[in-house]
Amino acid sequence: MKRFEEYKDAVNKALLPALHSAGPMPEKLEESMAYSLSAGGKRLRPVLLLASCEAAGGDPEEAMAFACALEMIHTYSLIHDDLPALDNDELRRGKPTNHMVFGEAGAILAGDGLLNTAAEVMARAASGMNDLRGTKAMACIMRHAGVSGMIGGQSLDVASENQEPDEELLTYIHLHKTADLLEAAVEAGLILAGAEPELVEAGRQFACHYGLAFQMTDDLLDVDGDAALMGKNTGMDAEQHKMTWVALKGVEKTREDAEREIRLACEALDRLPWELSIHRELAGSLLDRKY
Amino acid sequence: MKRFEEYKDAVNKALLPALHSAGPMPEKLEESMAYSLSAGGKRLRPVLLLASCEAAGGDPEEAMAFACALEMIHTYSLIHDDLPALDNDELRRGKPTNHMVFGEAGAILAGDGLLNTAAEVMARAASGMNDLRGTKAMACIMRHAGVSGMIGGQSLDVASENQEPDEELLTYIHLHKTADLLEAAVEAGLILAGAEPELVEAGRQFACHYGLAFQMTDDLLDVDGDAALMGKNTGMDAEQHKMTWVALKGVEKTREDAEREIRLACEALDRLPWELSIHRELAGSLLDRKY
Repeated sequence: MKRFEEYKDAVNKALLPALHSAGPMPEKLEESMAYSLSAGGKRLRPVLLLASCEAAGGDPEEAMAFACALEMIHTYSLIHDDLPALDNDELRRGKPTNHMVFGEAGAILAGDGLLNTAAEVMARAASGMNDLRGTKAMACIMRHAGVSGMIGGQSLDVASENQEPDEELLTYIHLHKTADLLEAAVEAGLILAGAEPELVEAGRQFACHYGLAFQMTDDLLDVDGDAALMGKNTGMDAEQHKMTWVALKGVEKTREDAEREIRLACEALDRLPWELSIHRELAGSLLDRKY
Repeated sequence: MKRFEEYKDAVNKALLPALHSAGPMPEKLEESMAYSLSAGGKRLRPVLLLASCEAAGGDPEEAMAFACALEMIHTYSLIHDDLPALDNDELRRGKPTNHMVFGEAGAILAGDGLLNTAAEVMARAASGMNDLRGTKAMACIMRHAGVSGMIGGQSLDVASENQEPDEELLTYIHLHKTADLLEAAVEAGLILAGAEPELVEAGRQFACHYGLAFQMTDDLLDVDGDAALMGKNTGMDAEQHKMTWVALKGVEKTREDAEREIRLACEALDRLPWELSIHRELAGSLLDRKY
């Protein structure tokens, strides 16, 4: 049974080769994409994909292209999210955001490049398989990343600034902006392992509850987190009049809701026949998050 | 033998349903993507894909998802290209550009949404086939659209503003910013039809020469075109100190080079065993372009 850090190291080794597999590209574009892709981060989504795949009997080496693609999608969404026209963030993971270093045009193109490369890497990997598992995993990832998934959540998040807090809207944003890519990770990993649809669905439910709890603890951290540990400014949500779980329900109720979602996530894991200790530890440790 | 207009009508009917097949999405996001997708345009790339596929014995209905995806990719590239941080264009196809109507954040997300939906629609279509043709066509399209293709060309185009004209650089930009998506159209159509690799390659060569001639005549139009017919401002390249074929070589030499590329495009068609009258007419009519 591999540990989180082992998967993370493997992802960190594979990410830049996956980027370069897209062929020769302009130097500045490569530099800008590599800057954000190498800027650290927990690698939560690719690790979840690999760990889900291997726990269900799949081949993590075969799954690596999809894991890297998922991290590219996550990274592009952060680059575009940080742009002046969106969240206007200057700091991310302790480093200047992409557009602070490469300019707005450079950051827009780096984001486009990472999203396109993600699809390219997956399509190429899927072309080399002898069945349609890879194609189906890719379809699953693109759907969760798309306009009815992550981009949809991001779109309403932007539109919700300065609006009155609203539980239905906020739940939509959390479900899509955060939970969708985590669902993609677990589902795609299980699809690649050839798991039965009802087990893929139980895996999705784990990731959905985990994602909601993740976003709730993220909102809590923005209120009482340590900027130095987190590598980004805190208090930004309130300053930008963002709709957050804490703004809607207060710190105590947010903590209770997060605990409920963590319990539901663990119950979903109980419906799966595999040893999923990484998933269980991730869910359990959310309330102790420091960054 | 269908005519260009028949394919174009079929594409226009299929585009919005393909967009909506990505599932329920926020209204504003849907509106913004549909605005640019419905803003007219020649539908050159999807028509070339369908016509190539059917001429080579493939099924144009099966190819339609890929044709729509290609037009979504073309459309997203125009939306991002028009942004203030890039070309800063206010008019496109006779209508205000996306960010003039939906704001910069809206335009960035609409572009991301169209690129993601393109990959999503293709991956879903490919998942439903009984072999890997769809997956391979998708891999081909994403490669041409990517960082070693269209995005690479766009990246150097942005970087080349205010630089001294340079034939090697300009050729790179034309090859990638313009020719790559046309190559994707012909290649993907032929791959879906199950054509042999050497015939796919001859199709690619047609599209490459056609694409270079297309961009050269585009540069000529920016100098002497009719803004009302074209639906966009002329003289923008010179105003923005863009590197163009005309700036590098002058009007007469550009026209000669375009003629040479058109001849090479037709010679590539001669190496293909199919009746490709739409391709031949497109190449032949380039020098008479009014818009």
